[in-house]
Amino acid sequence: MRNFDENTITQAVLERVAEARSPRIRQISEAVVRHLHNLVREIRPSQEEWGFAIDFLTRTGKMCDDKRQEFILLSDTLGVSMLVDAINHGGGEGVTESTVLGPFYVEGPPEPPHGADIAGGVDGEPLLVTGTVATPDGEPLAGAIVDVWHSDDHGFYDVQKGAGEGTAMRARFRSDAGGRFHFWTIKPAAYPIPDDGPVGDMLKAQGRHPWRPAHVHFMIEAPGYAKLVTHVFVAGDPYLDSDAVFGVKDQLIREFVRHPAGQAPDGRQMDRPYEHLHYDFGLNRL
Amino acid sequence: MRNFDENTITQAVLERVAEARSPRIRQISEAVVRHLHNLVREIRPSQEEWGFAIDFLTRTGKMCDDKRQEFILLSDTLGVSMLVDAINHGGGEGVTESTVLGPFYVEGPPEPPHGADIAGGVDGEPLLVTGTVATPDGEPLAGAIVDVWHSDDHGFYDVQKGAGEGTAMRARFRSDAGGRFHFWTIKPAAYPIPDDGPVGDMLKAQGRHPWRPAHVHFMIEAPGYAKLVTHVFVAGDPYLDSDAVFGVKDQLIREFVRHPAGQAPDGRQMDRPYEHLHYDFGLNRL
Repeated sequence: MRNFDENTITQAVLERVAEARSPRIRQISEAVVRHLHNLVREIRPSQEEWGFAIDFLTRTGKMCDDKRQEFILLSDTLGVSMLVDAINHGGGEGVTESTVLGPFYVEGPPEPPHGADIAGGVDGEPLLVTGTVATPDGEPLAGAIVDVWHSDDHGFYDVQKGAGEGTAMRARFRSDAGGRFHFWTIKPAAYPIPDDGPVGDMLKAQGRHPWRPAHVHFMIEAPGYAKLVTHVFVAGDPYLDSDAVFGVKDQLIREFVRHPAGQAPDGRQMDRPYEHLHYDFGLNRL
Repeated sequence: MRNFDENTITQAVLERVAEARSPRIRQISEAVVRHLHNLVREIRPSQEEWGFAIDFLTRTGKMCDDKRQEFILLSDTLGVSMLVDAINHGGGEGVTESTVLGPFYVEGPPEPPHGADIAGGVDGEPLLVTGTVATPDGEPLAGAIVDVWHSDDHGFYDVQKGAGEGTAMRARFRSDAGGRFHFWTIKPAAYPIPDDGPVGDMLKAQGRHPWRPAHVHFMIEAPGYAKLVTHVFVAGDPYLDSDAVFGVKDQLIREFVRHPAGQAPDGRQMDRPYEHLHYDFGLNRL
């Protein structure tokens, strides 16, 4: 096989992957080649534009480390992460909708008791979070693993702060016999996704802002149920309709209710005003 | 804009890039989003497969340094580099066909005199290379910059060898008043592209070998003419029909003619057998 032109080369590459190790690898390889070649034939890039693409992907890879995943940001900002999410999570009656994982989840979070303050000493408006985990029929699920993480009131996660700062605003709880969990923290703020790398350059070139509406991340697991990866968004946030990663769903927006100083619903005596978020999560059966 | 499903999200992302900084950036962004989303909808990746893709791209970026460009290898092995080449280089009567640049070109090669031995002390079968550079009508082009580079007889380029090894098997010449150039070196061998990284893993999974047929790279430039990036392949090589990067064209294959010891065409007295490659290059007018 020689002398390929801009049309015959696609068939040549498809024939080359025909002996792939598995039908799935063959299927994915063929689809990647067809769509990628169609893209190139539509764009008709100059050699310089091709070189820019090579360099963009290289810089995106080099930006990644244990605290930064620039290819996830690229997937998020091109709508690919939410598309993959939509393909894999049907939702349905009594099932909480999912959204993007994002790049800030950290394995092995601390496991404080119910009612603990997970703010880790970071300043901000006090926030009480209460919630339940249930089956699609509303039966409480005891012992579900509830991971939570969120930004501070300037929009930064603990892992984005300098070395020496400890774990903060992230924890793992297990739902009690009534499917309940609760904890204290501070209210998160809207924030720009990290935009000092190739993805930030792309957003600027595309005339887009990098902001995400304020939210608290939840990842909830229970045996026999599909893992739920989602956020709860703060009602009224100005970026709900222009989330840089297309992750907002109406069902996931909640009022963070403001309360004056006094006794909070969990019995804690508050000497200043606080907010309260409550969400009832429903997991899908496997 | 909220609550996207697997079909509506594509339009949402397209609307987001509508204010791009230039019409070309908007056009490329829109095409990337449409084709990428179509690919994802066809493959329907699981979250694990999406995670594998993120990790594959990240590892590909991290493999790149000043001596290794894994994203160019990826582009080459998926046929994208030759597709971009085909789009940009029409060829035509009297014009030499182009092929991939490859990842081993180094800026600022040494500039020895005509007739020099550029092997840099590397062992191998002696090879005399003679050539001419001309217009499409066959008029000699004087002063053209002729960059050449190639592998040794084990298939390795100088930059693939350990630190301490100097520049070898690469040089820059300028064509003389008759459009001619010539030099001595050693005969290159077929070689596998570097396959100890993500691209090598991909080739194995796709059931493909990583080999390229033996060749000498040429990059030729002259004012008023399109830069020519090409190879000359060794006739009879077993990989001419299965080049891992789809770069072979019949017009670029030449017999490397074997001669006994004695006086070579350039007057050099050879005390052992050598081979001779001659190629007449034609540049396209800009």
